[in-house]
Amino acid sequence: MTIAEIINGINSGNRFALAKGLTIIESTRPEDRQKSTEIVNACWHNKRDSKRIGITGSPGVGKSTFIDYYGEFLIEKGHKVAVLATDPSSSIHSGSILGDKTRMNNLSTSPSAFVRPSPNNNKMGGIQERTFESIILCESAGYDTIIIETVGVGQSEFSVSNVVDCLVLMLLPNAGDELQGIKKGIMEVADLFVLHKTDTVSSNQLTDAQKSLSTALHLANNTPLLFNEIISKISSLDGTGIDSFYNTIEKYFSLIKKNNSLNLKRQIQIEVYIRNLVKQKIIEHYKVSLDNISKSNEIDSNKSPHLQAEILFKNILKD
Amino acid sequence: MTIAEIINGINSGNRFALAKGLTIIESTRPEDRQKSTEIVNACWHNKRDSKRIGITGSPGVGKSTFIDYYGEFLIEKGHKVAVLATDPSSSIHSGSILGDKTRMNNLSTSPSAFVRPSPNNNKMGGIQERTFESIILCESAGYDTIIIETVGVGQSEFSVSNVVDCLVLMLLPNAGDELQGIKKGIMEVADLFVLHKTDTVSSNQLTDAQKSLSTALHLANNTPLLFNEIISKISSLDGTGIDSFYNTIEKYFSLIKKNNSLNLKRQIQIEVYIRNLVKQKIIEHYKVSLDNISKSNEIDSNKSPHLQAEILFKNILKD
Repeated sequence: MTIAEIINGINSGNRFALAKGLTIIESTRPEDRQKSTEIVNACWHNKRDSKRIGITGSPGVGKSTFIDYYGEFLIEKGHKVAVLATDPSSSIHSGSILGDKTRMNNLSTSPSAFVRPSPNNNKMGGIQERTFESIILCESAGYDTIIIETVGVGQSEFSVSNVVDCLVLMLLPNAGDELQGIKKGIMEVADLFVLHKTDTVSSNQLTDAQKSLSTALHLANNTPLLFNEIISKISSLDGTGIDSFYNTIEKYFSLIKKNNSLNLKRQIQIEVYIRNLVKQKIIEHYKVSLDNISKSNEIDSNKSPHLQAEILFKNILKD
Repeated sequence: MTIAEIINGINSGNRFALAKGLTIIESTRPEDRQKSTEIVNACWHNKRDSKRIGITGSPGVGKSTFIDYYGEFLIEKGHKVAVLATDPSSSIHSGSILGDKTRMNNLSTSPSAFVRPSPNNNKMGGIQERTFESIILCESAGYDTIIIETVGVGQSEFSVSNVVDCLVLMLLPNAGDELQGIKKGIMEVADLFVLHKTDTVSSNQLTDAQKSLSTALHLANNTPLLFNEIISKISSLDGTGIDSFYNTIEKYFSLIKKNNSLNLKRQIQIEVYIRNLVKQKIIEHYKVSLDNISKSNEIDSNKSPHLQAEILFKNILKD
């Protein structure tokens, strides 16, 4: 497939072309960089409007099940849904040691859905830029809802919060326990909250969970945006609550469109993306010199690393 | 406390000085950078020999309990133990929403142990360099075993593998389930494996778990280093198995000392550290220009981000 064919294919909604394009974007081979830029540039001008939704939460919270229900609900309403994963430990990732299946059974077989496991190579960094570019390609292929799945540990959810319009944090209804492991930061960047597997606790426990979460949200100083509806309760048995979650998302988007937050979010997303691209270009510009540091045998483990780094830095900049 | 007092304090094993020093290293305030460099430089020349051990595993695997037992065991043998966390979701982190306690009850009260929760600001990046520097300070303060705790999700364990001599992956003995969520990469970078909470399963299940893990290790193409003893089984009830884990660690270190791997690992650690320092210096050098990208209002969301980044990059390099 030529680059032109891939671009045309993506633009006409061809799944195979989209998959090809994403593979080139995720590639770390230097010869793919130029191709990747061409594809992203072309898709940038073809991209259509979409809702970009991030789903984060601990392993075991049931992100796959939830996305499967929500995606199916959206497709029944006539939407086209793309699901992307950003990290190898995401539940849709197919590269784990013993498991090799996509867990979204309904979505992965629907012609209106496109499910993309995360790249295997993403310990290479630049995840945020790759995810941003993947979103652009999916929009260009006509998907109107892009769901980004990520595990809420490490820095992943901060990366995701820079590429989505709405970040949903999923929690188990064992409230206290679950919240103890949660970082303050994630409460601040999340926009909506889902208590999942609500069928596993009693209604009293569920009320307690909701109270704990509200308190935690209050402590984290969340903007009381849509506060009454900020928390959704969803059963993982039969997806009860998905319809009300759908309505919350719709209200959320109509609000951020009306008060201009969506435009502002998108402008910041582009700025962050461009700044990271420039940063990458700078590092690439000095790549050979940086690589030579280890090859040169100049490093002396008895001398202070900081002083050695300062000398190396000055030499690199001089060249 | 002056910088000289902090340096002298660390070198004479003063815990308060060590804590102060670590705070300066973790600080993101520009005025602390110079101080931080001075402290690291001084400690670099004072550092003593230590075992640098990384402990990684999913939330809930019992990293705290394990480190508490292992640390106490080491202290009884006359060792001095420092425990550092690298990410906000580590179990020793004190900044979670509802919990505000250190979970290592034994260790945190022992005069021979130093327990340091992770910095709150580490979504800022540079975690790996900060951790490397923290290790240097702890060694300078006379701690002969440095334990780095991290949650094995995202990129954290790859960062940790660049600063430790031995990476221990902790797993629950529900084998199959647990291994499904594990990334291939972590199996490749881990040196030793601990099956924890072995008291929660039957001896048959434990045997199965060990077999699954061995198979997974084989699939991950691990070097069959010390293979017979690569997996330790530890109960979290009473710490049964800690003594044999201790022996495994001792054998591991005597082996990597004998075959020169330790020297090689340390040399690579320093190279990676210095290269990252140089990279940081390069980015810092261009920081003002990078920050100005968003302020300049030059970004046009209708134009291709790649083309805009290329122009900005060229202008920045020209300046």
